[in-house]
Amino acid sequence: MLNISGIAASAGIAIAKAFRLEHPDYTVTQKTVKNAEAEIAKLDDALAKSQVELERIKERTLQELGAQKAEIFESHLLILNDPELISPVKDMITNDQVNADYALNETSKQFVSMFENMKSVYLQERAADMKDVTKRILGHLLGLNVQNPAEISEEVIVISEDLTPSDTAQLNRKYVKGFTTNIGGRTSHSAIMARSLEIPAVVGTKNVLEQVEPGDLVIVDGLEGQIIVNPSDEVVAEYRDKQVKYDEQRAEWRKLREEPTVSTDGVHVELAANIGTPNDVAGVIDNGGEAVGLYRTEFLYMGRDKLPSEDVQYNAYKTVLEKMAGKPVVVRTLDIGGDKELPYLDLPKEMNPFLGFRAIRLCLDRQDIFRTQLRALLRASVHGDLRIMFPMIATLVEFRDAKALLEEERANLIGEGVAVADHIQLGIMVEIPSTAVLADQFAKEVDFFSIGTNDLIQYTMAADRMNERVSYLYQPYNPAILRLVDMVIKAAHKEGKWAGMCGEMAGDSVAIPLLLGLGLDEFSMSATSILPARSQISKLSRADMQELAAKALECGTAEEVVALVEAIQV
Amino acid sequence: MLNISGIAASAGIAIAKAFRLEHPDYTVTQKTVKNAEAEIAKLDDALAKSQVELERIKERTLQELGAQKAEIFESHLLILNDPELISPVKDMITNDQVNADYALNETSKQFVSMFENMKSVYLQERAADMKDVTKRILGHLLGLNVQNPAEISEEVIVISEDLTPSDTAQLNRKYVKGFTTNIGGRTSHSAIMARSLEIPAVVGTKNVLEQVEPGDLVIVDGLEGQIIVNPSDEVVAEYRDKQVKYDEQRAEWRKLREEPTVSTDGVHVELAANIGTPNDVAGVIDNGGEAVGLYRTEFLYMGRDKLPSEDVQYNAYKTVLEKMAGKPVVVRTLDIGGDKELPYLDLPKEMNPFLGFRAIRLCLDRQDIFRTQLRALLRASVHGDLRIMFPMIATLVEFRDAKALLEEERANLIGEGVAVADHIQLGIMVEIPSTAVLADQFAKEVDFFSIGTNDLIQYTMAADRMNERVSYLYQPYNPAILRLVDMVIKAAHKEGKWAGMCGEMAGDSVAIPLLLGLGLDEFSMSATSILPARSQISKLSRADMQELAAKALECGTAEEVVALVEAIQV
Repeated sequence: MLNISGIAASAGIAIAKAFRLEHPDYTVTQKTVKNAEAEIAKLDDALAKSQVELERIKERTLQELGAQKAEIFESHLLILNDPELISPVKDMITNDQVNADYALNETSKQFVSMFENMKSVYLQERAADMKDVTKRILGHLLGLNVQNPAEISEEVIVISEDLTPSDTAQLNRKYVKGFTTNIGGRTSHSAIMARSLEIPAVVGTKNVLEQVEPGDLVIVDGLEGQIIVNPSDEVVAEYRDKQVKYDEQRAEWRKLREEPTVSTDGVHVELAANIGTPNDVAGVIDNGGEAVGLYRTEFLYMGRDKLPSEDVQYNAYKTVLEKMAGKPVVVRTLDIGGDKELPYLDLPKEMNPFLGFRAIRLCLDRQDIFRTQLRALLRASVHGDLRIMFPMIATLVEFRDAKALLEEERANLIGEGVAVADHIQLGIMVEIPSTAVLADQFAKEVDFFSIGTNDLIQYTMAADRMNERVSYLYQPYNPAILRLVDMVIKAAHKEGKWAGMCGEMAGDSVAIPLLLGLGLDEFSMSATSILPARSQISKLSRADMQELAAKALECGTAEEVVALVEAIQV
Repeated sequence: MLNISGIAASAGIAIAKAFRLEHPDYTVTQKTVKNAEAEIAKLDDALAKSQVELERIKERTLQELGAQKAEIFESHLLILNDPELISPVKDMITNDQVNADYALNETSKQFVSMFENMKSVYLQERAADMKDVTKRILGHLLGLNVQNPAEISEEVIVISEDLTPSDTAQLNRKYVKGFTTNIGGRTSHSAIMARSLEIPAVVGTKNVLEQVEPGDLVIVDGLEGQIIVNPSDEVVAEYRDKQVKYDEQRAEWRKLREEPTVSTDGVHVELAANIGTPNDVAGVIDNGGEAVGLYRTEFLYMGRDKLPSEDVQYNAYKTVLEKMAGKPVVVRTLDIGGDKELPYLDLPKEMNPFLGFRAIRLCLDRQDIFRTQLRALLRASVHGDLRIMFPMIATLVEFRDAKALLEEERANLIGEGVAVADHIQLGIMVEIPSTAVLADQFAKEVDFFSIGTNDLIQYTMAADRMNERVSYLYQPYNPAILRLVDMVIKAAHKEGKWAGMCGEMAGDSVAIPLLLGLGLDEFSMSATSILPARSQISKLSRADMQELAAKALECGTAEEVVALVEAIQV
């Protein structure tokens, strides 16, 4: 029996035989070829085989996992058929008289390096896709035995160095009961996919692949971040018990799907979900979400070569509003820039992109882009309870300028005879310290606040949340953060407005008692966190939490705050 | 008569004939040479001439402008004698059989590009130095007629595209009455030098060089950022009048040198200076500084190839303390990282360096570096009123950890029989929003606060102060900033501690009435701002400013605050 520690990436317990998903050796060597045409024919053959394979996987993913998961293979097919990739490979074969695998690998490396250097999360994903597709073609060119996760047909725990996006997209919940990897963190691609698929997972173990043989019995404890290899019968029994308890808890949570969210002393709060595309709404409803608290519209602008038209946007917003059937939908206007780039906008590189020209700053400058989005939103407003929210507001002047553009477009549409809802709630993200500190002034002019803790914390602590060397300063429970949250909520209530939160903190079980105590009205989180949060709140007294929060506001450190919360949870 | 607008870079009025400082055409073309040895001999000759010239300029600068200004030529001589630059040039001449000027230019370009890509202000200055030295050598190689600002021997206004660091270092106040350039901003090198030399200057005019002929009469209005070319007699008379008034005002200020800083209702505040090296102390005393409010110790670590020893540091701190003769000296411990890199520390590149691993974060990790500095400070403490300040404190835990290291080193030194002052005031920079918001908790444990507005503003507004696209958000008068300042001052006073400010805001004439009203105890600024600030404060009533500040805290925007202050100044 062997215990291996890692990072708990997706909750739950899984017990099954190990399946080692190993990636073959894709090393290529440069060879001089006499017959370039024969090499090109080999390349074309590998491309054709990859095409067939990708279409099969895409189809299968579509049927078993849904349209959103299948999208990645759509991207792969686009890359496979992109003349910008394939033409240079063929040119290189002909001009340099080299073997196809070498030419492909070199060309791909150039693209990947170009994408990766752009320091954009979006382009880094494109780099990952490019690597994936290259491996697939190389596999055929080199005649390698490539394992296909989609072909797993018995219950297993997948053990791997890492999982590529195409690996994770192929994981079938029916057979893959859990997985564990050597590398990755809580926010790595594989971890996010695991939570979305609800497969227990432990990542970042450093060396699990080296310590597990095929067929070993493996326990994945996604609650504690533990892997147990070849456990004793006693340990298996203990974990079966833990698994049952967790499953019971999940079943308990499921019963809350149609229930309101009410504290023991009868205070109602709203639990909403954060979404990125209209496809995500199904998950919101399935998890009992009472609203969409944050619709990130960036995805509409990504993965394309030009700006989305007003109609494309209108249709997306309308779809979400209709699917939510009258429940509130808070749409955040474009938050691009920073780590999220759009290649076709050709924005200048910045020394500190998180402190740069992004979101509302860009939209107030590029009014063409902003007005199109505002028109699409206004047109969609008649299809449900639309609320519009501006991101990265730092000053009242910015809010007033953005609001003025909205009112202009409203007047334009009405002049054109287009129907627009009479009253649309208009709010702002509170994610910049200046706005939290001045919330009382903002509250006179906005309809609501939504506190974006991911950014608010990094600016308040002056610590890049992506930078591992300062990650110890990313402190949601720091009393300074709680005080800012308190200021925002108090300011909203004083003017009869509501205050929500749409950062990760809103779904965090340590933060929830504090936020309930501070009087937060709306908690917006990942859809899968809603039921556990509802369950937690239903066991808390708002009055007690008010006392707890008051004490937390007078603490000196985050550690003291955590100790306070832990004391009530015992 | 012609009016040209630019950026007011250094206050005052100057009227004199134009001197066009033009840089010749340094274009080089690649040529194949047969006799590489002859090319190398030409290079050696140009190097020797440059050496003689640089030593002459250095000597002259040392005598006329002092040691600090002469340092730049010391750097140039180091570059000139650096085998890492010269060897590759010679190798290129020999191996590629190319002309010396081409080889020099190519090699230099590589170094410059390497330095510039490192995005460090320090290395960018090295890039500027490298360009300067290359031009000097090229001038000799190409037999160009290079103008030497040090050779100006009549009263002139220097007109130029831009001024290089070596140009500005050679400007002699006796003859150069003012200058104006096509490019640059308020914080460009030439602007900073102009303020330090007290030469009126207008930069960023875009095209002044194209519009002025040698010998034209030119007025530089460094108060309003205006250039007038060939003014009428009336206009000359008007500006002579303005010049006399400004000079009278300066004379008035000079009278305040030995005076305390007291408001009309008898409230005393302390006006201190920010310094970078022991050489700066002369300027502090000359300008009537009551203390050193910020001694930036970074310069001790820069421009060298390894860490400064404990003794090197001890001597610097001791010198400053002795020169200040018992007046307070607040030394900030190492604030490196961010835009300030040290090549020999080999820090990893960061995506958002302003939100990264810098200052106290680095010092708590690299305790070897930090302990050496703390020991040097403790040893120096017996030579005056030393106060120690930690930069970039975001949490109480960081402060406690840093203080514990200081106490350990104090105990070590006492154990070694070394004398250490009994009580050394220990404070922190308040430049991170979390620390301002939690100032009441910090005030129980620190001896003083010094508000670092340059960083506090950029974090509070989430806007990189170096990024022009978001510079409109760098708002010292935003009510959110004033509220944070207010929190810090109130928290300090409640615990009987003092609160100072060492950002640019402390010397800003719009901010001073507000800061006086908020109760700031110490204002630390550029030495040259002290006398104008003392004059301003001596005309203000603290009680009135308290009313003004109270109103400003309830404003919604920076514009409203500025209007309030302007109303009292009429």
